[in-house]
Amino acid sequence: MSTAPACLGHGRVTITPALRAAVDRLDHRSRHQAAYHFGWITAGGAPTSADAGKAVRPALALLSAEAVGAPPEVALPGAVAVELVHNFSLVHDDLMDGDEERRHRRTVWKLWGSSSAILTGDAMLALAQEVLLDTGLPTAAPAARLLARTTRHLIRGQVQDLSFEQRSHVTVEECVDMAAGKTGALLSASAAIGAVLAGAPEATVDALALYGDQVGLAFQLVDDVLGIWGDPAVTGKPVHSDLRSRKKSLPVSYALNQEGPLSVELAAWFAAPGGPGGPGKPGEPGEPGEAELRRVAGLIEGAGGRDWALTEAARRLALAEDALRGVELDAGARDELVALGRFVVDREV
Amino acid sequence: MSTAPACLGHGRVTITPALRAAVDRLDHRSRHQAAYHFGWITAGGAPTSADAGKAVRPALALLSAEAVGAPPEVALPGAVAVELVHNFSLVHDDLMDGDEERRHRRTVWKLWGSSSAILTGDAMLALAQEVLLDTGLPTAAPAARLLARTTRHLIRGQVQDLSFEQRSHVTVEECVDMAAGKTGALLSASAAIGAVLAGAPEATVDALALYGDQVGLAFQLVDDVLGIWGDPAVTGKPVHSDLRSRKKSLPVSYALNQEGPLSVELAAWFAAPGGPGGPGKPGEPGEPGEAELRRVAGLIEGAGGRDWALTEAARRLALAEDALRGVELDAGARDELVALGRFVVDREV
Repeated sequence: MSTAPACLGHGRVTITPALRAAVDRLDHRSRHQAAYHFGWITAGGAPTSADAGKAVRPALALLSAEAVGAPPEVALPGAVAVELVHNFSLVHDDLMDGDEERRHRRTVWKLWGSSSAILTGDAMLALAQEVLLDTGLPTAAPAARLLARTTRHLIRGQVQDLSFEQRSHVTVEECVDMAAGKTGALLSASAAIGAVLAGAPEATVDALALYGDQVGLAFQLVDDVLGIWGDPAVTGKPVHSDLRSRKKSLPVSYALNQEGPLSVELAAWFAAPGGPGGPGKPGEPGEPGEAELRRVAGLIEGAGGRDWALTEAARRLALAEDALRGVELDAGARDELVALGRFVVDREV
Repeated sequence: MSTAPACLGHGRVTITPALRAAVDRLDHRSRHQAAYHFGWITAGGAPTSADAGKAVRPALALLSAEAVGAPPEVALPGAVAVELVHNFSLVHDDLMDGDEERRHRRTVWKLWGSSSAILTGDAMLALAQEVLLDTGLPTAAPAARLLARTTRHLIRGQVQDLSFEQRSHVTVEECVDMAAGKTGALLSASAAIGAVLAGAPEATVDALALYGDQVGLAFQLVDDVLGIWGDPAVTGKPVHSDLRSRKKSLPVSYALNQEGPLSVELAAWFAAPGGPGGPGKPGEPGEPGEAELRRVAGLIEGAGGRDWALTEAARRLALAEDALRGVELDAGARDELVALGRFVVDREV
């Protein structure tokens, strides 16, 4: 299990030169902003090495080739492409969500305005396809096709997420479908794209894709539990952060869809948090206090939302590992995939 | 020459079923907004047939296959893809420019908000690649590669356009380069993608791409002349519309880069339109009046901006036609391409 952090670090180191070479093709503004976003330069352009995230997706892409007996280099354009698609979505999401910081640095839209964030995100998305198709490999077309379809699902998840904010009732199934799009789709494509580039049989590609789908859902379930009950010292977010933003996350949607007085009380709170005074936003009058958020977290837990999410995460992780056992894979790479899946899911809850 | 409007109408009719089938794959919100944008439904969802633009790009794509002796059906996924990329850029541009109307209908962002416009545009861009790659044709990969590279140039042009607004001095070369990205790149790809899908030789593809590049620049030169001197009854825009928005268009950049008192006076106006009172926006105090705009248009004409732009447009159109004569092409399709190029360029100036 101790191999996962090493594997992630190795993935980051492996892809960075190719990712930088790809970003260098962009026009000077998009290049600057993308390089800033990836943590390579400061806003002013000075070299730096800021936190660029865990690079889970490139690591999965490289392991995906190794798992089917191909050298990881075969997956390199795929690893770069999935990282570009992930970061296209982050740059656009930060703008849409109005998030001013990511990894303790100002976001692209906050520094350079919304038009820049739109264009830099667009440029990264187009570049992802270009990197794959420039290889000239006969397997580039199916890999690019997988990535285009995945992007459609990723956007579908984002659209659902936005629509849920405006709806009073969301089923658990809809919420899982949203997470499958927003989180599962690209992890699935990452876990499959190396095998696609290596020309692996369809059944093997499908098994790796299923592993990625399930790891993605398990990750999101745990992430949502941490968003409500996580220790701020561990998550780096305020306590009850997802309740403060009234996010209809997976444990919340489960709890809201149960029978009984706790769910009724919870639904009333989500309809008008902060009580009859109406919804309060952070820092505004009417913002729910700590005691109230603790009470709401208790309602979700009492209605079974926390237990369900953790049980469901464990079930999804087991399904992911089952998928890897159902096909012939390189044993070492399979072990690394299992370790990586557990690493991204098994966080302090 | 009378064939061009028929050819455009035919192109629109040919691609619409395939374009609608592609859009049907999107999530329900993006599908609705894209269908509205394409003029197929009202904002409320009722069927309609609003103006969806001239569909120049799909017509070029279909002719591009015919020009190399292939049936136009070969180009159909390419025609759909270039129309999707064009409309992705329109949906994002309308948001970035704050344009509330397009073709006399409210824009996507105006109706559904900026997040919707971002996501619907993103979805169209990803869908363009998916449509091409789903064909499974061996030529889909080079076509998708052409489209990804083209999208990068299109975004580069848009980035340059935005940056010019913030700069006091722009060279003619920079302005031409911007137009080559923003207008030329996708017309070039449209004129080449049918031939790429048909597996035509590189020299033929390059000639068609060059034709599209030059038609794109000629179109933009004429469009910029109309933006200053166009008859509102013909253009559908207010008189002097590009001067009202102080756009550093091609004739303006030419005039600004000449020697002499007219250019100096023009530069002073662009630095502080409306005189010492500072820049005035339409509808605000300080907005330049009709007499002032006429005077500025006269300065540009006096410095040679109008003549240069029209001469340059004619030269570019001739280069486009030369490019078509340099390779072996189907005579009928070549004639249609020539007619289409003249049709989009030769407007009432």
